[in-house]
Amino acid sequence: MPKVSEDHLAARRSQILDGARRCFAEYGYDGATVRRLEDATGLSRGAIFHHFKDKDGLFLALAHEDATRMADVVAEGGLVQVMRDMLAQPEQYDWLGTRLEIARRLRTDPEFRRSWLQRSQELTEATLARLAAQKSAGRLRDDVPTEVLVGYLDLVLDGLIARIASGNTGAQLDAVLDLVEESVRKHE
Amino acid sequence: MPKVSEDHLAARRSQILDGARRCFAEYGYDGATVRRLEDATGLSRGAIFHHFKDKDGLFLALAHEDATRMADVVAEGGLVQVMRDMLAQPEQYDWLGTRLEIARRLRTDPEFRRSWLQRSQELTEATLARLAAQKSAGRLRDDVPTEVLVGYLDLVLDGLIARIASGNTGAQLDAVLDLVEESVRKHE
Repeated sequence: MPKVSEDHLAARRSQILDGARRCFAEYGYDGATVRRLEDATGLSRGAIFHHFKDKDGLFLALAHEDATRMADVVAEGGLVQVMRDMLAQPEQYDWLGTRLEIARRLRTDPEFRRSWLQRSQELTEATLARLAAQKSAGRLRDDVPTEVLVGYLDLVLDGLIARIASGNTGAQLDAVLDLVEESVRKHE
Repeated sequence: MPKVSEDHLAARRSQILDGARRCFAEYGYDGATVRRLEDATGLSRGAIFHHFKDKDGLFLALAHEDATRMADVVAEGGLVQVMRDMLAQPEQYDWLGTRLEIARRLRTDPEFRRSWLQRSQELTEATLARLAAQKSAGRLRDDVPTEVLVGYLDLVLDGLIARIASGNTGAQLDAVLDLVEESVRKHE
């Protein structure tokens, strides 16, 4: 076998993740069979599961990619900006519906839940750091604990994910996000 | 065949709905097979589908029951009160996870979507009526259109349903709901 470079491995990994993301978006978690994952990635199951332990591993890697990307946006513009981006291009977030399908497993499978929370840790930390900075700058309300504000924004984000997954993104959601943003801001 | 009374029909219908609710909560939408629905309701498929056209019909009837119950709470105490009730007894709302599983169908099946929206119409109307009353009483903020406030509360409700479905109801959600309630109130 020829020696494969790091670059090649990274490109292959990214090819698999992109295909898997499309496959989950189209067929859902259960519907994304190994056969369909092969079709979507253009690779054999051997190649796919050389890079990822199993379907859960693929799914958690996608969740981790999302968390990393969102954490960057959070650092720059905050969690409401993440939501505005989602709302502007909902079709890019179709796959998020898959997160809803795994809700029952999160509730009933502690090991899976632990892995999931680990993968989203980065986003939580970025959000906490952003809010701390905003608070120091006097832009964040200080009559409510930061943890509650994080919990609030996370709850709204979960709602938005449910909306995008069900294609129900009309209903003045832009104005709703303005209200959300304003409700964590400091008022004179 | 003996003539069955209206009361008997209503009792039978309610027996089916209760069983179906438990069955959806435990196995999810796809997992709630006709066989399992028979076990959960203690009735034959013939009896079940004499009352409901098909599994979708059962599901939509449950959604309608929820909407009616929630509309009553909304009329008395508002949509945030509905959320507080859910948070106080999340185990009674396990079945709501099923709503998340059907997100993809809502997005891709216009007929199903239409039926779904029809079933939840009652709740939307109750929420609008309640907010209008609160606004007249001077308790609701008047710098944001009522439709946006409804959209906001609905979005938070969707987030809460996702949380309950995934068993993630810690994280100071009581305090978060206080914040939600306060953010639609009029301030002096």
